[in-house]
Amino acid sequence: MTAVDVVVMAAGKGTRMKSRTAKVLHRLGGRPLIAHVMDTAHALAARRTIVITGHGAEDVEGWLRSAAAAQGRPSPDFVRQEPQLGTGHAVQQAVPVLPDDGIALILNGDVPLIRPETLQALVDKCGGERLALLTVEMADPTGYGRILRRGDAVQAIVEHKDASAAQRGIREVYTGFMAVPERKLKTWLARLSNDNAQREYYLTDIVQFAVADGCEVVASPAAEQVEVDGVNSPLQLAALERAFQSRQANALMEQGVRLADPARFDLRGRLSCGQDVEIDVNCVFQGEVSLGDNVRIGPNCVISNAKIAANVVLQAYTHIEGEEAGVEIGEGALIGPFARLRPGAQLGPEVHIGNFVEVKNSTLARGAKANHLAYLGDTTVGERVNYGAGSITANYDGANKNRTVIEADVHVGSNCVLVAPVTVAKGGTIGAGSVVNKNTEPGALTVARAKQVSITNWQRPKKAAKK
Amino acid sequence: MTAVDVVVMAAGKGTRMKSRTAKVLHRLGGRPLIAHVMDTAHALAARRTIVITGHGAEDVEGWLRSAAAAQGRPSPDFVRQEPQLGTGHAVQQAVPVLPDDGIALILNGDVPLIRPETLQALVDKCGGERLALLTVEMADPTGYGRILRRGDAVQAIVEHKDASAAQRGIREVYTGFMAVPERKLKTWLARLSNDNAQREYYLTDIVQFAVADGCEVVASPAAEQVEVDGVNSPLQLAALERAFQSRQANALMEQGVRLADPARFDLRGRLSCGQDVEIDVNCVFQGEVSLGDNVRIGPNCVISNAKIAANVVLQAYTHIEGEEAGVEIGEGALIGPFARLRPGAQLGPEVHIGNFVEVKNSTLARGAKANHLAYLGDTTVGERVNYGAGSITANYDGANKNRTVIEADVHVGSNCVLVAPVTVAKGGTIGAGSVVNKNTEPGALTVARAKQVSITNWQRPKKAAKK
Amino acid sequence: MTAVDVVVMAAGKGTRMKSRTAKVLHRLGGRPLIAHVMDTAHALAARRTIVITGHGAEDVEGWLRSAAAAQGRPSPDFVRQEPQLGTGHAVQQAVPVLPDDGIALILNGDVPLIRPETLQALVDKCGGERLALLTVEMADPTGYGRILRRGDAVQAIVEHKDASAAQRGIREVYTGFMAVPERKLKTWLARLSNDNAQREYYLTDIVQFAVADGCEVVASPAAEQVEVDGVNSPLQLAALERAFQSRQANALMEQGVRLADPARFDLRGRLSCGQDVEIDVNCVFQGEVSLGDNVRIGPNCVISNAKIAANVVLQAYTHIEGEEAGVEIGEGALIGPFARLRPGAQLGPEVHIGNFVEVKNSTLARGAKANHLAYLGDTTVGERVNYGAGSITANYDGANKNRTVIEADVHVGSNCVLVAPVTVAKGGTIGAGSVVNKNTEPGALTVARAKQVSITNWQRPKKAAKK
Repeated sequence: MTAVDVVVMAAGKGTRMKSRTAKVLHRLGGRPLIAHVMDTAHALAARRTIVITGHGAEDVEGWLRSAAAAQGRPSPDFVRQEPQLGTGHAVQQAVPVLPDDGIALILNGDVPLIRPETLQALVDKCGGERLALLTVEMADPTGYGRILRRGDAVQAIVEHKDASAAQRGIREVYTGFMAVPERKLKTWLARLSNDNAQREYYLTDIVQFAVADGCEVVASPAAEQVEVDGVNSPLQLAALERAFQSRQANALMEQGVRLADPARFDLRGRLSCGQDVEIDVNCVFQGEVSLGDNVRIGPNCVISNAKIAANVVLQAYTHIEGEEAGVEIGEGALIGPFARLRPGAQLGPEVHIGNFVEVKNSTLARGAKANHLAYLGDTTVGERVNYGAGSITANYDGANKNRTVIEADVHVGSNCVLVAPVTVAKGGTIGAGSVVNKNTEPGALTVARAKQVSITNWQRPKKAAKK
Repeated sequence: MTAVDVVVMAAGKGTRMKSRTAKVLHRLGGRPLIAHVMDTAHALAARRTIVITGHGAEDVEGWLRSAAAAQGRPSPDFVRQEPQLGTGHAVQQAVPVLPDDGIALILNGDVPLIRPETLQALVDKCGGERLALLTVEMADPTGYGRILRRGDAVQAIVEHKDASAAQRGIREVYTGFMAVPERKLKTWLARLSNDNAQREYYLTDIVQFAVADGCEVVASPAAEQVEVDGVNSPLQLAALERAFQSRQANALMEQGVRLADPARFDLRGRLSCGQDVEIDVNCVFQGEVSLGDNVRIGPNCVISNAKIAANVVLQAYTHIEGEEAGVEIGEGALIGPFARLRPGAQLGPEVHIGNFVEVKNSTLARGAKANHLAYLGDTTVGERVNYGAGSITANYDGANKNRTVIEADVHVGSNCVLVAPVTVAKGGTIGAGSVVNKNTEPGALTVARAKQVSITNWQRPKKAAKK
Repeated sequence: MTAVDVVVMAAGKGTRMKSRTAKVLHRLGGRPLIAHVMDTAHALAARRTIVITGHGAEDVEGWLRSAAAAQGRPSPDFVRQEPQLGTGHAVQQAVPVLPDDGIALILNGDVPLIRPETLQALVDKCGGERLALLTVEMADPTGYGRILRRGDAVQAIVEHKDASAAQRGIREVYTGFMAVPERKLKTWLARLSNDNAQREYYLTDIVQFAVADGCEVVASPAAEQVEVDGVNSPLQLAALERAFQSRQANALMEQGVRLADPARFDLRGRLSCGQDVEIDVNCVFQGEVSLGDNVRIGPNCVISNAKIAANVVLQAYTHIEGEEAGVEIGEGALIGPFARLRPGAQLGPEVHIGNFVEVKNSTLARGAKANHLAYLGDTTVGERVNYGAGSITANYDGANKNRTVIEADVHVGSNCVLVAPVTVAKGGTIGAGSVVNKNTEPGALTVARAKQVSITNWQRPKKAAKK
């Protein structure tokens, strides 16, 4: 098989994005547009990937280098196109680093939804001999270059403005993707001229050279337009984001995941699901999330970087952000509503975390409960602990974070403060409203509480006279 | 009028659901698919309902028996189809329990959105004499059995694969629903053969027997395809869920309810609304919910099993789950944002429940307020009580739930704990930060608080050197 | 240029709204339907605006008078139409206050999305001489009055019920908007008759008078149907709300704002955005909101009347309601998730407000932090203050609101109460669980805490035997 070298066009400015961020670094599904294209190149087992950068070149190259390193892939090669003198000029920059013996597959860094199988078909049509153009049928092709065919053979691409009335009736247009024998590509690139109104070098001009040289030009149609749609404005970005999310939602439903509303589902990363998973409306998933069998997720949850075991129920408005440390939730746990789990929250089986409770960098053993208005930070919680409403672990003394240990079967009353470092030993009880800063004995009742006294016939403050 | 007996096909496996749950028990609008079909049968005043079960038969039968009992309806009859040898074979199982003198109306347990009026028209077309087929016009009928007519009379159903090019142009297809004179049905069922590629007994084969017997075959068209769409995959389930929700949203709007976005509205149960009700985006209703006149519901609320009186305002992210005990909210109350009302919360008129406040199994009288970060559980709260920020009722001693009573006009300060069982008598005041576990006198100021002392020139902890 | 006087039809009942509110006062994008029409009239620099009221006249007139005063515009003139005897009768009421020398532009108070440029084109077509009708092409014109043309000249409007089969094929219909030379309008209005089935006076009858008088009748087409769609039911209101929101979302995206899902974006007021603003799914904006450069807003936020500086991050479920006093957030602040900012919250640069924290009428200086379960009300917070988890400012003594001052570099421990009026001086520390009601010295450690004591071998309460 002829080797494939991928050339990614990523030099454009994207003026209509009105952004300081380079166009190809704008995010779709949580990742830069060009990351999707790089993944597609990787899926094709490309021999070499050359990225043509220009506007925001340092940012683009930096991002791609880091991403390659993080994924354990070799960095792509970079060539700079400065100034930008057209698509043909862009590819000319790649000539010095492009091999001669393969197929050059020209991709666009701002067209993220192209499928590997579509490109493979394009490469196959090229076959190392033909100039293969990726085309698409458009309902309204106004403004696009039409494909003129004689039978299967492509005769030319005619720009909209140059097209006759009859030609404008053609709905098959060129998409910006092509696969070209490299040796031929190089000869054609050398013949490009900028003798046109824009004074630009157009890559599409190589079609006429191919025809003149007797090289066969073939068209390979994409299945759906969304594959070849590019991002030039926030409107287009939003439209492709929805197309991407819809694609992901459908894939999950095909696997058996039940989504209450596929149009209100956002996944910006990877979501792996067991059997009989149900996800209610308006949930957002980010990073790496895995859900075990029978997991049920309520409406309006936001979940990132979490491993959630079988039979867990996340109620409405559960907010989980695992970030680097991750969050783990054990089998049969019940979380929410209005719960927040932060990095390093590790919850055992049957743990309950209720409303207005925050857990950070803490381990809760099987069956521990913190059901109401509480904070657990840098804490180790034993089995069956009941952590009272309004209780707080004071893990930060203003300078250092310290650890709290609450051993098995402890009951912490309401509105307590456990001042770390401190250990509440096995089976102990902490009376409501206590501030505990000394370790306690196993089984002991510990209180730090003033005596209740009453003043009868007390006069409440009166409303002050308005001045 | 000829009696109607309903036969519900509910034996299918639903492989593409990839679920452990029987297909007809998957939920649409919060209820199993087959529950919708049973309601439709009930609306038709069917004499008898026979459900043909197979895959997951015990679960399906169990669910239907319980549901019938809960609704005070007689249980349907069940017949098992094991193994599953086709639609004709399925109906053959019903023969022993099917009367002879009525109309058999064949429904599908996985087609939930069929309307009673559509079926009534089908039954009327049958009239106890004709074989009446429910049909529908499809934009793309590929794969479906086409209806061959001569004038009004149906000649045959032609399977897609057997259809000529001309026949494939027919867009009227058979839907799987039919109404048949029972006596004739039984003779035709007896003549079915499985002499075909699949070795199955097809119910549609009775059309040819009817034609051969000179029995008139008629088609009754369904108004919209969504009525006859079945659920075979999570994608189809999600699509029908949206169609169902849209139907419900439209019905509510026809009644005068103002929905900010009908596409972001979910009702899984019953919602009754007074005049001038406004519901903001992305709300979910479950179970039985009633809303009085002028109720306004903010964005992102989740509400189940609640009675909400006139002029109540629920602000954003209000979470109400009444479950069995229910939740009641009195006229003019103001709830949220970020409030959670749990089973047995009974709020009087003009009550205010504010942010990060949880109320469970508690009664609040007119004008009581708990506006900030608080928990009220198993508590009786009198009129005009002001329950301070951060205050908690400690209703659970680790073994038993006890009751707290806060009489009228009490002011509870911030960050208090009321340790149940305890009564704060009328007009009393509880100082901030107090833990109260003894009853207080009317009008008394009660505090349990340590003296404030200061250590000047105190040195704060220093950041520990990193090891 | 001929002067334009606007006549707004606003007398209708809107029976299908099933509401106590006058139809034109129902809200679209947070403002009454008629407010949108008044803005459009204002954009056209109308000389005079006459509103014809009827049903709910006092409410409508009252609202419009107040709104005009609030905007510093002159109040429109009002004429009452009682009873309502048709569109012609409505405009007849305006005759006494309508000048003679200009163009009368007839608008509809329940058609909110008409664009000024569409109306300007209509006025231009009128030119002070012609009867100009606003028309629109409808895919399904059933029920609407068709425009009969001979070339450019309009011959008549034919009601659907009177139309021939050929006329019913016409898809250009009359929209209810027209521009008419005032002097001619008055002569035609005087000739209207109610000699028809409904016994009503139809404004459209003037077309025949114009033709009879040899006055040219011209049609000016609207670009899209949504511009001329009226609101007669909650369904239509919801449909136009979505169209309006879509229009606003597109306008923001054209400016460079990145919306994760334009179909889940609601703006009910005005939103001004700097560069590189990102808004996640399902956010609602109300009143006047401004967002600086690089502001990122997480999913499910609800924000009203706030000024948010550059580089601020609002995490999921942030709820901001500035109302009259407004909310301000300084550069680089980090807010949420589950934070609530209420009127008068003024946060300096780099302030952090975390989960389950409420801030009301308080000023926080640069770098202050309140990250967990806390309430700050009527408080002045200095730079770098760390306000502990669970801490509360007791700003309300049951009668008056008092102010708390927390000076720079103070650390307030967990679960404290600061009882206002009180000042915690610079650099002070408040021990966990303390209730502070006396001012503290700079740099002092202040505690109000009982001694921790333990009872060993304590017996927990036992589960009571069920009676």
